[in-house]
Amino acid sequence: MSTPPIRITGARITPVAFVDPPLLNTVGVHQPYALRAIIQLDTDAGLVGLGETYADTAHLARLTAATEAIVGQDVFALGAIRQAIDAKLDTLSITGGDGVAGMITTASTTDRVLSPFEVACLDVQGKALGRPVSDLLGGAVRTEVPFSAYLFYKWAGHPGAEPDSWGAALDPEGLVRQAQRMIGEYGFKAIKLKGGVFPPEQEIAAITALRAAFPDLPLRLDPNAAWTVDTSIHVASELAGVLEYLEDPTPGLEGMAEVAAEAKMPLATNMCVVAFDQIEESVRRNSVSVVLSDHHYWGGLQRSRLLAGICDTFGLGLSMHSNSHLGISFAAMVHLAAATPNLSYACDTHWPWKDEDVVKPGALSIVGGAVAVPTAPGLGVEIDDDALSVLHQQYLDCGISDRDDTGYMKSVDPSFENTCPRW
Amino acid sequence: MSTPPIRITGARITPVAFVDPPLLNTVGVHQPYALRAIIQLDTDAGLVGLGETYADTAHLARLTAATEAIVGQDVFALGAIRQAIDAKLDTLSITGGDGVAGMITTASTTDRVLSPFEVACLDVQGKALGRPVSDLLGGAVRTEVPFSAYLFYKWAGHPGAEPDSWGAALDPEGLVRQAQRMIGEYGFKAIKLKGGVFPPEQEIAAITALRAAFPDLPLRLDPNAAWTVDTSIHVASELAGVLEYLEDPTPGLEGMAEVAAEAKMPLATNMCVVAFDQIEESVRRNSVSVVLSDHHYWGGLQRSRLLAGICDTFGLGLSMHSNSHLGISFAAMVHLAAATPNLSYACDTHWPWKDEDVVKPGALSIVGGAVAVPTAPGLGVEIDDDALSVLHQQYLDCGISDRDDTGYMKSVDPSFENTCPRW
Repeated sequence: MSTPPIRITGARITPVAFVDPPLLNTVGVHQPYALRAIIQLDTDAGLVGLGETYADTAHLARLTAATEAIVGQDVFALGAIRQAIDAKLDTLSITGGDGVAGMITTASTTDRVLSPFEVACLDVQGKALGRPVSDLLGGAVRTEVPFSAYLFYKWAGHPGAEPDSWGAALDPEGLVRQAQRMIGEYGFKAIKLKGGVFPPEQEIAAITALRAAFPDLPLRLDPNAAWTVDTSIHVASELAGVLEYLEDPTPGLEGMAEVAAEAKMPLATNMCVVAFDQIEESVRRNSVSVVLSDHHYWGGLQRSRLLAGICDTFGLGLSMHSNSHLGISFAAMVHLAAATPNLSYACDTHWPWKDEDVVKPGALSIVGGAVAVPTAPGLGVEIDDDALSVLHQQYLDCGISDRDDTGYMKSVDPSFENTCPRW
Repeated sequence: MSTPPIRITGARITPVAFVDPPLLNTVGVHQPYALRAIIQLDTDAGLVGLGETYADTAHLARLTAATEAIVGQDVFALGAIRQAIDAKLDTLSITGGDGVAGMITTASTTDRVLSPFEVACLDVQGKALGRPVSDLLGGAVRTEVPFSAYLFYKWAGHPGAEPDSWGAALDPEGLVRQAQRMIGEYGFKAIKLKGGVFPPEQEIAAITALRAAFPDLPLRLDPNAAWTVDTSIHVASELAGVLEYLEDPTPGLEGMAEVAAEAKMPLATNMCVVAFDQIEESVRRNSVSVVLSDHHYWGGLQRSRLLAGICDTFGLGLSMHSNSHLGISFAAMVHLAAATPNLSYACDTHWPWKDEDVVKPGALSIVGGAVAVPTAPGLGVEIDDDALSVLHQQYLDCGISDRDDTGYMKSVDPSFENTCPRW
């Protein structure tokens, strides 16, 4: 017997802010609060779907416009929803607001706006069907999803504030201490270092120290395109046999191809292949051999599955990029990764770096470096209304409405310049 | 609330034969009966899913083995089902049996075997959810799917039998008559001619006659790789501005690339890109610009969606190939095409060439050259048990257990040789 459509009646878009430590990267430093937009998608069936995305001002305006465009659509009509959002965005003239501090050079705006709505639609589908979202993506092929320890150079605390519990990590010893705590608490079986902060020789020394401290764990280094081609080739040579992959050493598909031709390890990216229209050139140039997917800019979970299938088809490795996120996105990442047969590497997550959330605790936890795939209907996470209110108030109070790692760094160090490549 | 898994308890695999006219192609001629295997997938929920595929002996043996491998799986666990079939086939040593008379040179055996089970799983999912299969593929983005008039050179009837109602079509006039009847009955708005039967100049004359008779309809010609590169370039030059695409003029990705570099119209294929592991070379060589998808060898509907996404990503056109088929496959093709935003051309179908079926009539019909997308749960077609019995008995009685267009042609014309390229 046919069941009726489940029509979208609206979406509540709530910007929130959560406390974020002073994590350093090549464009600057994380501000005291990270921003996210929480989507509660309402339907005529009374079911509410959850989504999470960036909360920069321009992105919020696009989300509002997209909501208008999809009211009345069935939550199963993902193709039509994408077309409606695409058509709506064509009529707007909003620029900027990618939410990732300029570390992604370009991406499909439609896919970035679609993503939280698509996730929310799948959440509703799953709730209506009594099935976890992974079942809507071809079914989980693993019961838990491995993640990596995501290390950052960091200050002890934000300027003018008390040191946070992690303390400083500004040299190899500090990073090893950070890794020891993070791995001790979460059991990660792979390590990623966000680099591009100090001159390459210092970061080589950091990787060498991590290798000595964790001889059995795969290591990755991501300088966010801070290096020239020559520097990248030099670092790749120094760390041959040490890194499982080198992520975005240099900007652009052409430069990456030059490095790839010389480097002994695979090159990974979440910067030069961040949209479907960049894949063909990357393939033709052999620029990268690992793509770090991210459903926030690849158009949601179904289109991230397409990306995974493309990687499988073209012999590319696949892992998952992380931006600072909360529990809704974490659940979505886990369902997607669980249903992706060709996930080649442990996924990235900023999860250990935050204490606050908008979802009720307990649905997701990292044990032994992995997260058990939720089996409850939909994403398997629930909004904590009180926590949502608190983090929304924090958004209103924090004075940040657009992510600006560079501006924040300049406020601390006026001589700082965002140059790329830096070395 | 969670709903329990819907577990596969077995599959009834019924080979059937249906009357097929003497349609000519470059490898020979259609035998008096076409074979198909009908899958009825049983589940512990009492829901039965339908699938349809080739019925050559070797393929039937693989289907039986695959059934053993997937008993106990949840119908939502499509990834795990594919892995189970892949592992099972690895243990077998069955060769041959692609069901398409040698007109596909290679393909992924796993995907070919998976396909009818995947379709049947989606049919069960849809029935369980009260939703059409198109809703499980991202939702229909069109309410009807356009098909093309698929013209064939043909004898008046099978040797020794009465002429069939279509009569002979062995020259331009005969093809125009055939087209007039087919378009009169079904309203097709595009025309495809299966060529490779007569020397190229005669087929150019046929296309020219069709252009004169149907000045407004897009035309396609498919000689199934019957021509050398030089012949292909010559024909492409003669038919520039006349064909919307030229399909598989010559064998292989290298030859196709040579033709593509010279031809003014797009080259399409269902011969040199028939599996995921052929796509990369085709892209690198620029061998084709249109892929004719076919869920029977691309691993079912979800993986055909992946193919569609790859075509979209790499700027390739997309249409749909047809092999002789019955109503279950037709329904699957329609749901898939309905949910594929980037379907660039009307799909192919052999539907007008057969009178018999295993499904109850009425669910699918071609009106104005298009098929309305079924909205009933699942595929929207039901087995007619009596018709299934009749066509199974016909299979047992007809003496054909492997498709052999070449052998049948040789039995009529002992001098016939299957050469490729022929001209």
